[in-house]
Amino acid sequence: MSHHPTTREACAALDATDPLASFRARFSVPPGPIYLDGNSLGVLPAATPARLAQVIAEEWGAGLIRSWNSTSRGPGWVDLPQRLGDKLAPVIGAAAGTVRVCDSTSINLFKLLAAALAQRPGRTVIVSEADNFPTDLYIAEGLAALLGQQHVLRLVAADDIEAALDEEVAVLLLSHVNYRTGRLHDMAALTAAAHAKGALTLWDLAHSAGALPVQLAEARADFAVGCGYKYLNGGPGAPAFLYVAPSHQAQLAAPLSGWFGHARPFAFEPSYAPAPGVDRLLVGTPPVLSMAALEVGIDLMAEADMYQLRQKSLCMSALFAARIEHEFADVGLRQISPRDDARRGSQVCFAHPQAWPVMQALIARGVVGDVRAPDILRFGFTPLYLSYTQVWDAVTHLAEVLRNREWDAPEFHQKNKVT
Amino acid sequence: MSHHPTTREACAALDATDPLASFRARFSVPPGPIYLDGNSLGVLPAATPARLAQVIAEEWGAGLIRSWNSTSRGPGWVDLPQRLGDKLAPVIGAAAGTVRVCDSTSINLFKLLAAALAQRPGRTVIVSEADNFPTDLYIAEGLAALLGQQHVLRLVAADDIEAALDEEVAVLLLSHVNYRTGRLHDMAALTAAAHAKGALTLWDLAHSAGALPVQLAEARADFAVGCGYKYLNGGPGAPAFLYVAPSHQAQLAAPLSGWFGHARPFAFEPSYAPAPGVDRLLVGTPPVLSMAALEVGIDLMAEADMYQLRQKSLCMSALFAARIEHEFADVGLRQISPRDDARRGSQVCFAHPQAWPVMQALIARGVVGDVRAPDILRFGFTPLYLSYTQVWDAVTHLAEVLRNREWDAPEFHQKNKVT
Repeated sequence: MSHHPTTREACAALDATDPLASFRARFSVPPGPIYLDGNSLGVLPAATPARLAQVIAEEWGAGLIRSWNSTSRGPGWVDLPQRLGDKLAPVIGAAAGTVRVCDSTSINLFKLLAAALAQRPGRTVIVSEADNFPTDLYIAEGLAALLGQQHVLRLVAADDIEAALDEEVAVLLLSHVNYRTGRLHDMAALTAAAHAKGALTLWDLAHSAGALPVQLAEARADFAVGCGYKYLNGGPGAPAFLYVAPSHQAQLAAPLSGWFGHARPFAFEPSYAPAPGVDRLLVGTPPVLSMAALEVGIDLMAEADMYQLRQKSLCMSALFAARIEHEFADVGLRQISPRDDARRGSQVCFAHPQAWPVMQALIARGVVGDVRAPDILRFGFTPLYLSYTQVWDAVTHLAEVLRNREWDAPEFHQKNKVT
Repeated sequence: MSHHPTTREACAALDATDPLASFRARFSVPPGPIYLDGNSLGVLPAATPARLAQVIAEEWGAGLIRSWNSTSRGPGWVDLPQRLGDKLAPVIGAAAGTVRVCDSTSINLFKLLAAALAQRPGRTVIVSEADNFPTDLYIAEGLAALLGQQHVLRLVAADDIEAALDEEVAVLLLSHVNYRTGRLHDMAALTAAAHAKGALTLWDLAHSAGALPVQLAEARADFAVGCGYKYLNGGPGAPAFLYVAPSHQAQLAAPLSGWFGHARPFAFEPSYAPAPGVDRLLVGTPPVLSMAALEVGIDLMAEADMYQLRQKSLCMSALFAARIEHEFADVGLRQISPRDDARRGSQVCFAHPQAWPVMQALIARGVVGDVRAPDILRFGFTPLYLSYTQVWDAVTHLAEVLRNREWDAPEFHQKNKVT
């Protein structure tokens, strides 16, 4: 595991020289809790309230329809999917013109899976991980049903993915970082393995975009989707994004062929003619208020050095895991996240038979993580607004909750009842 | 045409006794222009800025993930699609539990068209109007292509719809009010005609929800979609809505089978199991900020008496059209909206060979309408924030622009260049 501090004083010393420390003031982090759930919902950037107030009062309230204009005469709402996509592209190792911000992760996954299957006619298998985030699997199930059950979903364990690739496989559909275990796949190696069998890759970056350096182009990924409300701090239910490699843009099926994906949306032509490349994957009118909030989050993330961010993230997860393993071996937690830095995302997770009540008791102490069924305690690390000392303290609280069995205490139940 | 005032003084007298007049103060209407484009983008409700500031600072900034909770302990983001849908239902003549707010109009149309086709296996025709809003036709084209071209789109003129219905027709897909002409279809009669041939109906309410009384249940409509950012004043790109008649909810295909449409989304089960009824048509995480703004617009509309609103709307469009026809017959406008009140939505439209420059010159005078290709000047009436006097003055300006050929004047071009 990554080099990490072994005392609270060492954490404070690291905080004092942290090159990312100045980012914390750019977020409105609530003063009390230690928030280790930015992998579920990122915190509010400090600039967001004023930006939204401006969009609402000036662009919508005063500007009205002319704010759609893309010229110098308006704020250019019509270009938001492109503008945000091009700003996000460097954060995920992609070129301008390959990323667009639109719709939800699930809907973008549907579009790209349909587009990928259309490029591999005759191949009948979609390979994924049995433990993939469920909506990815649900969307694949639904698309297969819609297409008349010509495709089957081959679900395998994380270690068996390469072995599951053969000449029948159309698409390898994977989350880059597993939402429960935090396991990080080797995107370049698995993409190469898929390509060797003639299959395409579709990556879900929900837990990696903004969490660690992603190199879509370098890894030769074919397609990707991702989420705006986790590490990108775009706000609850923020729009998602999609990526199409340059080589696939000319021949790209657009199954959700709405007017914003038309070559000339405002000519109101009766027949569909796809816009060039990835723009044809836009569908309806973009939700401007949610897009504006996401832009603030992307702008912030684009300022961060992703390698500094990764170093701090790994140091934090290593610190958390090492204390549990060495100082608190008695508390009954079983680590399920990889110990190897190269295979761990920006979270650590532990199994515990009382996961849910343990987390409630921990939250009552002001440390916020979350629980994933059936028995996983999940802690996410967001280096832009967390300090090493906070992570140190979070482990101490967790160990005390467990040693004291605080979820059993009557005063805890009483308290939980009234809040 | 509806009874309407014939002098500016009569307009002022009507304004003085207008039962809807108090609504105007509930909107932040820009003080200068006469805005006849609320059918493209509704104006900002006065309560929206404070509500969004609260959602951003308190619910997101301070509340973070616990704001998803649907209990008394949180603001219930997770229930937004249901809460907004149930508030909107009475505005469109639907029962609670039949309307959900989610995604865009185009995406909702895709879902419902796929669901409708699945209920009519063996039938191969989708009937629509050749002049329907293009995205509706594009989505149908794209779905037909995805399903292997088993279905054809039969596009006919508005007057030929009934004749186009036969036993091959699976779905009649229509906009309730035509976006260019403002023509209003008889929903109950066309639905009955479709049902008589065994076909289902799917209505796009983009230009009727919040514009006139819609009676989905009474008309026995099967499915409907609509838009949040026009007459519902939900903000630019506001989420859309969908409706499923109670009789179709048990057997409902969900082609975009995302986790928010799962029976137990937070159990993270590996296989898809649809939520009961219309809830299975939810897909991804709702865009909370855009949803919160739309809720303010829906709350306002739900307060209005839709029959008073319709009466005022018809009086306004009749006033506008009658002045053009009788006072300004010389200005070269050809009305293309129906003269019959029962067949006219909440807009009037005129063809003019110089439509675009005419509109630019009119906007320079402070009257905002819009243009739809190739040659249509479009004026929308939003009775909650427009006065009769404004409509009177708008016609006067339009006639003067045309009589003076103001779009030809060099000072107009000069002015347009610099603004």
